[in-house]
Parts: sequence; structure tokens; C-alpha cells
Amino acid sequence: MGFLKDEGVVYKPVDSVDLGPDSKEVYLRANVKAPRMAGFLVKVFAWLLESRIFGALMLYILKKNNLIHKLVSFAELQESPLFVPLHPHEGHGEEEKCTKPDHLSPVEQVQLATDCLQTSEEMNKINPKLSFQRWTILDYSRRYMSQEVTPVMVAKKFIAAVNESSKPLRPMSFFIDFNPEDILQQATESTHRYERGEPISVLDGVLIAIKDEIDCLPYPTTGGTKWLHKVRPCIEDACCVKRLRSCGAILVGKTNMHELGAGTSGINPHYGTTRNPYDSSRIAGGSSSGSAAVVCAGLCPVALGVDGGGSVRMPAALCGVVGLKPTFGRVPHSGVLPLNWTVGMVGILTGTIEDALIVYGAISGPISSDQSAQVMVCGDITSHSDAESKVCFPLLKAPECRSDIKLAKYGEWFNDCTDDIRVCCSNALAKLFDVYGWKTIEVTMPEIEVMRLAHYLTIGSECSTSIACHLEKLDMAELGWDARVALSVYGAFNSREYLNAQMIRNRQLQFYMKIFAKADVIVTPTTGVTAYPIKDDVLKTGELDYINGAALVRYQIAGNFLGLPAVTVPVGYDKSGLPIGLQFIGKPWSESLLIHVAFAMQALCISDYRRPEIFYDLLSKD
Amino acid sequence: MGFLKDEGVVYKPVDSVDLGPDSKEVYLRANVKAPRMAGFLVKVFAWLLESRIFGALMLYILKKNNLIHKLVSFAELQESPLFVPLHPHEGHGEEEKCTKPDHLSPVEQVQLATDCLQTSEEMNKINPKLSFQRWTILDYSRRYMSQEVTPVMVAKKFIAAVNESSKPLRPMSFFIDFNPEDILQQATESTHRYERGEPISVLDGVLIAIKDEIDCLPYPTTGGTKWLHKVRPCIEDACCVKRLRSCGAILVGKTNMHELGAGTSGINPHYGTTRNPYDSSRIAGGSSSGSAAVVCAGLCPVALGVDGGGSVRMPAALCGVVGLKPTFGRVPHSGVLPLNWTVGMVGILTGTIEDALIVYGAISGPISSDQSAQVMVCGDITSHSDAESKVCFPLLKAPECRSDIKLAKYGEWFNDCTDDIRVCCSNALAKLFDVYGWKTIEVTMPEIEVMRLAHYLTIGSECSTSIACHLEKLDMAELGWDARVALSVYGAFNSREYLNAQMIRNRQLQFYMKIFAKADVIVTPTTGVTAYPIKDDVLKTGELDYINGAALVRYQIAGNFLGLPAVTVPVGYDKSGLPIGLQFIGKPWSESLLIHVAFAMQALCISDYRRPEIFYDLLSKD
Repeated sequence: MGFLKDEGVVYKPVDSVDLGPDSKEVYLRANVKAPRMAGFLVKVFAWLLESRIFGALMLYILKKNNLIHKLVSFAELQESPLFVPLHPHEGHGEEEKCTKPDHLSPVEQVQLATDCLQTSEEMNKINPKLSFQRWTILDYSRRYMSQEVTPVMVAKKFIAAVNESSKPLRPMSFFIDFNPEDILQQATESTHRYERGEPISVLDGVLIAIKDEIDCLPYPTTGGTKWLHKVRPCIEDACCVKRLRSCGAILVGKTNMHELGAGTSGINPHYGTTRNPYDSSRIAGGSSSGSAAVVCAGLCPVALGVDGGGSVRMPAALCGVVGLKPTFGRVPHSGVLPLNWTVGMVGILTGTIEDALIVYGAISGPISSDQSAQVMVCGDITSHSDAESKVCFPLLKAPECRSDIKLAKYGEWFNDCTDDIRVCCSNALAKLFDVYGWKTIEVTMPEIEVMRLAHYLTIGSECSTSIACHLEKLDMAELGWDARVALSVYGAFNSREYLNAQMIRNRQLQFYMKIFAKADVIVTPTTGVTAYPIKDDVLKTGELDYINGAALVRYQIAGNFLGLPAVTVPVGYDKSGLPIGLQFIGKPWSESLLIHVAFAMQALCISDYRRPEIFYDLLSKD
Repeated sequence: MGFLKDEGVVYKPVDSVDLGPDSKEVYLRANVKAPRMAGFLVKVFAWLLESRIFGALMLYILKKNNLIHKLVSFAELQESPLFVPLHPHEGHGEEEKCTKPDHLSPVEQVQLATDCLQTSEEMNKINPKLSFQRWTILDYSRRYMSQEVTPVMVAKKFIAAVNESSKPLRPMSFFIDFNPEDILQQATESTHRYERGEPISVLDGVLIAIKDEIDCLPYPTTGGTKWLHKVRPCIEDACCVKRLRSCGAILVGKTNMHELGAGTSGINPHYGTTRNPYDSSRIAGGSSSGSAAVVCAGLCPVALGVDGGGSVRMPAALCGVVGLKPTFGRVPHSGVLPLNWTVGMVGILTGTIEDALIVYGAISGPISSDQSAQVMVCGDITSHSDAESKVCFPLLKAPECRSDIKLAKYGEWFNDCTDDIRVCCSNALAKLFDVYGWKTIEVTMPEIEVMRLAHYLTIGSECSTSIACHLEKLDMAELGWDARVALSVYGAFNSREYLNAQMIRNRQLQFYMKIFAKADVIVTPTTGVTAYPIKDDVLKTGELDYINGAALVRYQIAGNFLGLPAVTVPVGYDKSGLPIGLQFIGKPWSESLLIHVAFAMQALCISDYRRPEIFYDLLSKD
């Protein structure tokens, strides 16, 4: 074994770890040992990693220096591996409308969700008006109903706006592909339905953008690459897209993303770097960069993303929109690129939490039993037995009605972010306590950095396995340089490392369930930094910036690795005017409570929301 | 990538594979490229594998030559990985007594199982008498009840017999540890219960031996090693042992096994090689070698084993006893050495299928809900929701009553064994058709050798991971030479290989479920060879005989990799007088049907059973 014999940590039994506020557990700051690289340096680094001798040595040093050896590879663990974070179903609270999704269609579920929004007068009392006109699903639906505006009119404005945003000087790079003809065709059909007085649902005629990791006809699914769509044709809509289409939504194209979802910046050398509508010199965050940016810029009220390591919540926070990542298994995964099997989930990006609730209604629930064969193919036979699972929606009435919410907060972790974020998130939290009387439970969450590494190792192993057979036939020049580096590292793990990571998953789930025994939700900032500048040297080669990357994903991992639902809500801005998000992480299947909490938070912040620098007002009459 | 770039197979979609009798799918005979080794050669081989440079090269060549690269490592698969073969619960047939195990204690379940055995007169009509006096659980129970014989008398005979069997010239090496004082203590308590007329169940006073991979007080759990019990103390009975003890059974000690369960011969350099009671110059099979041999030799009517790759069924077949491996999850795994997490299950070894039914009653069913925290630790949170699962027992009446059983048979696979086994198993099958009118469905089962390799890679990765942190601190001289070779190979897999193996698991499960849509059970010989001779050079170093090993495991893998229930019944003898077993593999949770089928088979063979060369008659009056 020779130099490969490193020291591993011996983990204590879960029950002997103190999760209370005075715990002796040490908060380990992410100790990233990798310099920022872009331009020529990334190329050299990729070449070295791909070379047989140097590569093995460098990977060894990277794994050792970044504590992977100590905390994961050679660790001593008592837990059994937990491979898939699929949770058993439990009961739900009372103030909710529930449905067995086998019984209701997406259209019916959307109706149920819409019923949970109170009448507009009531809403205005509770939820002060948005500080600028960010149009919501119900705004679109009402204008269409009154026929002041038609879906075709909106579609035309949308197409013009996208073209406008793509101008050469500083293209926003929102979309990888969008097809004006197809959009107008859908808009025309929707317009006819309104003319006949027969809209399908409140989503009829509403523009929805889809991350280019999710199958949506008539587009190929590139996953942000130059080649994946050539070896894996898109033959039908993904299940979630099918459901949106069945509600009458207009699917407007495939949003830009970090190549293979293998990064958090949204810098894509093939399709351009998505820019942040609040400051177009900065990143939108990733990997669902385009989906966050189009909602931010007012192009669509809704977009779908995929969240494998915060990929929906991070860009949502950086772009000042709502990002909801449901419980693992809540939204069927069929038709999403299989870039991993145990951490990625479809997520929702919207301007307001009310819109997230409606879209959540449209896409939630297991595939119906006649498609159960497909469920098995999706990787877990046990999901069969979940036909009994319910989808519940909270009645969005005055949040004051519930004064009993307990929020768990781990101070050291909460504060591991920039000063602006810390102050802004703390203030937001203080308002929740002041206005609603909610309570904080101070806790200690152990081994956060361990979980980050275990998740990295898992998503990396699964991603490289899922595309390995394609890579073998591929000209490496088809890949971006930062993706080449990522794939070299992703492919470097052995089966023991993978299995140890799954034991850490089991261990962490036990910690989280113990904390949820005392608190309803866990609260954190969504990211440790706000949108950072796009440097000149990154556009063609991509960028390796593991330090900013670690700051972005710091609060994301439990949502993916443990399959927990999580939501980010905009709560303010830093000194440069860049949006800041606050995150709530819930128990398994507690989306209803989570939406309630996020709604309460939004009600206290919404009147201070600021309009982005780049913004398109598609509903105004001009 | 250089010389590591091998060609991988591109697998067809499952639905395009023909599973009918005229399929073009080719039956690939196991193509083992590794010479038999023992003595000094094994030592050299182990040293080479453990050396840094030679080791990597040799492992590469081994993996390439044995088609692991082609069929698994570099294969192109469409399936998602299936990590744990935990199946959803389904309905059961009508002729059965079922129980929700949350409601019944092990004692009550034993009673329910015993009720399924008809009265002895009826039984004698159906099931002709055993050709020699192999005492059953009910024989013991009746003698104890009548007080002709007491548990103490039997325990004393047992202790004398074990001592007799351990004589230096040719020790049978049945046990790793047995404690006469503890046995007599238990026997005394049981005897008092019978004296008071208060036996706990039909298992009261019945001797049961436990494989040394399962925790059973007051013994350490060695796993067949010299060191594992030093780093992992046994602090309480395993769940299955606890249940047997609660029924009044006398736990008589820890049976010998292949070191770490990492072999199929039962040759153990530390505790001696378990010999076959039918011919003490031959192996008993493994890894549950001692458990099969003690039942065969009449020392106990019952023993428990653990079956991770046929480890219960293979030695059962080689020793002419019944071996039942239940569905994955049927018997709680807590207190079994965690040498793997997704393939190993507790199994039952008995002289007759009736006894297997009773013991199955005692140990089946989930851990009760107050212990649900433990279930989560056992590696799968979804097993929570299976509190509704039922345990069912077949009424063992005349098998002629059911003429509708359909047995799937894949001719090429069925016939890939020695002539004696083929003829004997075919004759047994013919009797089933003649006497009961059952039917054969000819099928083709694809990619059998692929599944064997994927399972090997899985159990190997999990075994080496589970003990890796101990191994790092261990003097390698504490390990047997064949175990050192096995561990070198086990530790050589990367995460892609592990994940690909899990995709193959998903794929194979789909094939099996398609076959079960047409047939009730799948029938095969249990092993491809009968017990082979123990050569002189193996006793101290162990033996590497992958060719015989592959012939032994040929029919085992679905039981483990797919978690399916399976049972082996003795159906005859080869020309040397060595036992031959026939195996039935069932649908998930179909133990009840499987026991019914095995009972029917046994009824046609039992009068021809031959007494082993080494046999102890503990109930006779002398």
C-alpha cells in the first residue's frame, strides 16, 4: 500500500454526538486546497490530470490535501450504507388540502393549489404588493381571461426580448435553444382556448422555460454539452414537462446551464456564460443558470431546473428569485438526463412562492400505476409501494395564525458567509420572530464538511459512470476544459470510497432526523457569497474556482444527499445591490409546511424587492 | 487511458431480449481463467497481489481475462442502478395461514407453522418415512413431552458426539466454539420446563447451531478469522438468535465457516477444514460449512447460516440437507457480521422441509416498530413502511391438491453440471410432472455469467469496505492465504465498476420478473458439482479453486443479487454416494409457495435418503 496508507478519522457513534448548542463538535470550515484557474492554466491542469502517471499522482495529492482521504476514503464508520434517500411517507398537518395523486390529474392538482391562495384582497392585506411589477401566474391568467392580453401577444414580446438579450456586445446567454415557431404555435392554440372560454388551467398560456437537462420536445437535450444530444436523442417530454404541457403551459425553450451540471458558476464555453440580470458583469450561479436568470429578468414567471448539489437554489438566490427543491421522489425523474441517480431532483424557479406552489401542484406525485414498470427502471423498486403517498398544499392565509413554528439554527454554520449575507439573513430571521412569534432552537450540526465531500464523491462517481461509455468514444476536444478537469476527478474514486460516502449519508440522515425531532425546519443563508464577477479569462475555457464553489454549495448538500425538501426566498441585497437568499430545509415530505414558512418570510420582504438591471415587462400595454 | 481502454459490451434493451425457448441468446459457460493453487503457490500469489506494481498489473490481467472488463467494467447499460434488492410486498395465495408479524411473537408464529403440518398419520400417508432415523423437531418435542428423553440427556450425548468428532486423526471441524457448560445450563432449564409441563414451544430443548457469522452469546463472533472478534466484540444475540432463544431452543455453539465467508469450500486454515459427513475425505461446501455438516451428521436438527452467494444452499446440497434462503429483508439482519449490506441473508439448514417451515416461523418478520430506529441503521430507510408485511405458511397437505404449478427451466443452464447431477435432477423433475401433473415452461435466462461477475464485484467491494479499517491495523499474517488473495481482488474495484454492477442488478431483476409472469418458480440443480476431495496441500494455506468455485455458485446468484427466496432439497446421490440437491427459486415473498413445492419434491425422494458415514443418533435409547 505504501504511500497510499493515510490516516482516516474514526467516527463516534451517532448517539454519542451532542447536537445541542453547547456541543464540543468543531465546525470545520471548508478547507479547499486548489487555486483558482482559468485560461491556459486550466488547459495544462486538464492535460496533466488526463496523463497516466502525473494524473494518478495529482489526484492522490488533491484527495489527500482536500481531506477526502482523512474524512471519507480511510474513515472508520459503524453505519450501513444508505444508497437512495427515499423516505417513508408520514402523516401531514391539518391546515392543508391533500390529494392522493393517483386520483387527480395535474390540472386538478393545480386547481387545488390555486384554491389555497386566498382572494386577492385578502392576499394584499397579508402579502404587501411586490415593489415592482414582477408578473405572476395569476397575473397572466387574469389578463388572458379578460382578453386584454393574449398568449400570442406575450409570446411575440418574449421572442423579441430573447433576441434583444442575445445581442453580441454582452449576450445574456439565457437559452441554449428556443424555437419561435414552436412557441407561437403553442401560443396560438392557447389563445384559441381563451377565445373559446376554455382555458385548461391557470397555467394555460403561461410561459415556462426548461433547463436543458430535462427532455422537452421539439428540442434536443444537450446537458450543456456539444455532444450528449447526439448520442442520446430526446424522444419525448420528461414526465414533469408532460404535466405542464397538459395544463396548457407554453414551453419556451431550453435554458443554459453549466456543462453537465458539473459546476456552480453557470460559465459555459459552448453556449455562452449566463449573466446575472441584477448585474450583467456577474454570474447567475449554476448549474441551472439560465432558468434562474430568465425568471429574474421577467421573461417567464416559471422555469424548471435540476438540483443535484444546490443547482436550483444557488442560482435562484443569486438571481433573487424563489427556488423550491422538493423531497427526493416527489417529482418523477423520468426524462431527466441520468447524470446521477441518487442526488438530483427536478426543482422549481419562480418569482414568488405562490407561483412555486402552483407549479408544485402541476408536477408533483408519483407516476400513475399503469406506468409502474417505468418506476422500477428509475432505480428503486420500493417506490412502487408509495402509491398511497399524498401531495398536500398549505392554505396561504395570514402567517400569524401559526405562532408555533420552531426553526433550528446552527450559529457557526449560519455565520460562515460574507458580512452582508450574515446581517441580511439575521435581520430577516429576527423579523420572523418579532412579527409571528416563531422560535429559534440553537443546535449543532456535526460533520458538515464531511457530508460535502461525501456528496461530491457520490455525484462525481455517478456522473462519470453515467457518461463513461460515451466518453470513451468521444473526442476530448468536444468537452470544455473545466468539465474535463471535473470528469478526471469524478472518475478517480474506488468502490470503498463510494460505499463509505453512503455510510456517511446514513449517519447524516440520523443527525438530521434527531434535529427534526426538535424543530420544524432548519434555517440557513442559501449561499455563502453573492454573485461574483465574470472574469475575462473564463469565457472560453471555463473556470476552476473551488473556493467560491465551496462557498456557494455550503448550505445545499442536505437537500440532495439526504433528499430533504428545501426552499430559498429572496430576503434582501448586499452593498452592491446583489440579491441574498434565505433557505429553509424541511423534514421529508414537508413541502406544505415549507411553503407556508417561505410565504411568511416573503410577506415580510416582498415590498423591498428591487427590479433587476435587465428586466422585460411582457404584460404591460405598450 | 492507454492499456486500460478495453472494449465493453453494449447491452440490448431488456424488452428486446427474447426470453423464450428459441431465443438466440447465447449461454456463456463460466470462463474462469485462474489455475488451482494451494500450498506455496498461494503464498507467492498473495505476495504478488499485495505488491504495489505487480499487484496492479496482475489484477488488471485477472479482470481482463475473466471478462470483468468486457461484461461489467466497460459495459454500456441503459438501466439505472438498483442498490438494494428490497421488494414491495404483494398479496399471497389462499391456502395459507398468514400473520402480520407485528401482532405475533416468535412462539406464536412457530405454533402457526406447526399447525400447518398435518397429523402424523396423514403425514405418513403423504410423506413416506425417512429411510433412516433423522430426528426432526417434532420427534424431539414429542420425546421431551413424553419425558422418555430429556434435553439434558440429549445435550450430554451431543457434547460427547462433538468431542468424538474432533479426534485428532481426522477431525470433522464442525465447530469453531462450543461451551458444554452453557449448553448444559440451557438444557437444564428446558428440562425443568418440561417437568413443570410448561414447554415454551415445539422448539423448546431443540439443539440449534449457529454459524460463526451471527452473534450468539456467550460466544465471540469470529467470522472464521483469528482477529475479527477482537475488534468487534459480541455484546448481544442477533435478532434471529434472540427469537430462537425466546422459543426455548438450546443454542449449542458456533459452527465453522470459510474465513470471512470469502470462499465456497469451507477449508479454514485456522479452525480446521469442515469435512463432509457423507465422505470425510471431501469438503462440506461453504461458506456455512459447519452448519450444513452438523445437521447432516445428526448433531442438531437445525442450524442457521448466512447466504451471501449461495453460502447456505451450496453446503446444504453437498451435505444432503434442506437449505432455505428467505427473501431479502424477511429475516432481520441485525447482529449478523456486516461483511456486506446488499446480498447476504440469514438462511436455515434442516434435515426436512417441515423443520425449515417451523424455524422459518420462529425467525421471520420485521423488527417490531419500537426498534424501528435499528431498521434504519440496517441500511434502508424504506423498510420502515413494511410494517404491514405478512408472513405466510403453507398447509402441508397432499401436494396433489395443487396441479397448477408451473416450473421455469432453462435447459442449457440446467444441464451445465456433471452427468450424475443432470440425470438425478432431471429424474426428480420428471417425477414432479408424473405424480402431480406439474408443468415445465422452457425459458432462456440471459446473461447468467454477467450476473455472476456483477455479484462477485458487489460482494467483494462491500466485504473489503466493511473490514478495510480493521485490515489497516492488522498484521497480514493473521489472515489465511486464500483470504489474502480474495481481499486483494475484492479491493480492486472502482466506483464505476460498482455502479455498473448495480445497473446489471436492475437489468437482471427485470428479466426474472418477466419469467415469473409466466412461471411460479424457477428450477435448477443446486450446484454444478458434488462434494470434491480435500487435497493434502490445502489444510494450512487454503485453496484457490475458482473452477470448482464457479461450478458451485453457478445456480446461486439470483437468490442473493436479486434478493429472491430459494430452497434446496436433496433429491439423490451421485455414483460416489454424494448428495445432490435440486433448487427452486421463487418470486419475492413467495416462501410459502416455495416450501409447498419443496415439500412435494421431498415427498417423492425422502424414502431413498441415505444415512451419512458420520452420523450421531442422539434420540435413541442406549
